[in-house]
Amino acid sequence: MKPLIYSLFEKMDIKTTDNEIAGEIASDLLEIAAIKLNLAKPYSWSSGWKSPVYCDNRLSLSYPRIRDKIKSHLAVSIRKLFPSVEIIAGVATAGIPQGALVADALSLPFIYVRSKPKGHGMENMIEGYLEEGKKVVVIEDLISTGGSSLKAIEALRQNKAEVLGLMAIFNYGFAVADENFSEAGVQAYSLSNYNEMIKRALSSGYIKDNQVETLKAWRLDPAGWG
Amino acid sequence: MKPLIYSLFEKMDIKTTDNEIAGEIASDLLEIAAIKLNLAKPYSWSSGWKSPVYCDNRLSLSYPRIRDKIKSHLAVSIRKLFPSVEIIAGVATAGIPQGALVADALSLPFIYVRSKPKGHGMENMIEGYLEEGKKVVVIEDLISTGGSSLKAIEALRQNKAEVLGLMAIFNYGFAVADENFSEAGVQAYSLSNYNEMIKRALSSGYIKDNQVETLKAWRLDPAGWG
Repeated sequence: MKPLIYSLFEKMDIKTTDNEIAGEIASDLLEIAAIKLNLAKPYSWSSGWKSPVYCDNRLSLSYPRIRDKIKSHLAVSIRKLFPSVEIIAGVATAGIPQGALVADALSLPFIYVRSKPKGHGMENMIEGYLEEGKKVVVIEDLISTGGSSLKAIEALRQNKAEVLGLMAIFNYGFAVADENFSEAGVQAYSLSNYNEMIKRALSSGYIKDNQVETLKAWRLDPAGWG
Repeated sequence: MKPLIYSLFEKMDIKTTDNEIAGEIASDLLEIAAIKLNLAKPYSWSSGWKSPVYCDNRLSLSYPRIRDKIKSHLAVSIRKLFPSVEIIAGVATAGIPQGALVADALSLPFIYVRSKPKGHGMENMIEGYLEEGKKVVVIEDLISTGGSSLKAIEALRQNKAEVLGLMAIFNYGFAVADENFSEAGVQAYSLSNYNEMIKRALSSGYIKDNQVETLKAWRLDPAGWG
């Protein structure tokens, strides 16, 4: 296998496992419209941000070939980057299906972490059996600010898990995510990222040269853009 | 393979796929405390019901051997009972991980259904790509009244899916669930059920003969029990 080539975002802590794979997965996500670009009519995110990009990796679950590819790359990367992993944890809701598939591929126990406790009975934020002190790798769908991932990681640490790191499918590459993960001391990786996606969107003719600057500007200041 | 043997709940529409498998899975769930019985100090369910039983099948996700067994039996039963299935749908949240594993085992597209819309952006109750008119089998963790399953099925039908039926891991065997599925015209099956669980709990010495009547009484009138 090729050595890991780290991200185009050179100063970032959130690393891309392999740039060739990152490009290939970005192409797949664009092909099934899991990633959509619209510069003329930006999307509204739940955070209130306007964005020329909308990403819904959950669509990849409906395409077995792409779902398999993502599963395999996640599993292989975890074995390489976190060989001592004992438990796979999915971040609810979008990280649960791929998390379960990766746990299956690696024959490891699976748990998942809710964004908040269910508020009744014996149910809390962590579902499944988490033995104290176990080494956990967290599976996330998408990294934007990193907020939901870090909330899940905090819940895991409070429950005495040793969190080895996080593997996501896609990372927007915001500086704020980088700061958040770095501050929390979390090793985070993603299979694909915004820059590789732009390269593929450009080479396939989905976007034009003169749109790249706008897309770059959004990544550098997503809160103030538009 | 053996012919399908239908449920001990003879009049029920919710059928158990095979009584031997039902017993084996009940034993597994009891062994890992995914099913707990406590007649002296009943559990409080979120519905307000008091119950001598608490079932958390999500724990089985953390035991690869049991998780695999459940996945295989779900997949084999679906191939047999619904051979024309085109899409596997998981009911959020607990039905998502096994749903994804079953979709993987059958190399079919996967979608999942939320209990309510996320309320922003392009997100609605169904996540993933549901093509109109496709034949869907729904994966559910647990059938109590059938309410959450039927809400998911309603959302699928509103989105023009053809729902072939539902496969659950465990069924309490309440008459109300039977009525609800029958009324909605849904073919529902489960791998394991309350009666087989009681038999196994009895044969392993987890419960005693004189406790069986109480456990039966609860199933017949869960709302009024205790």
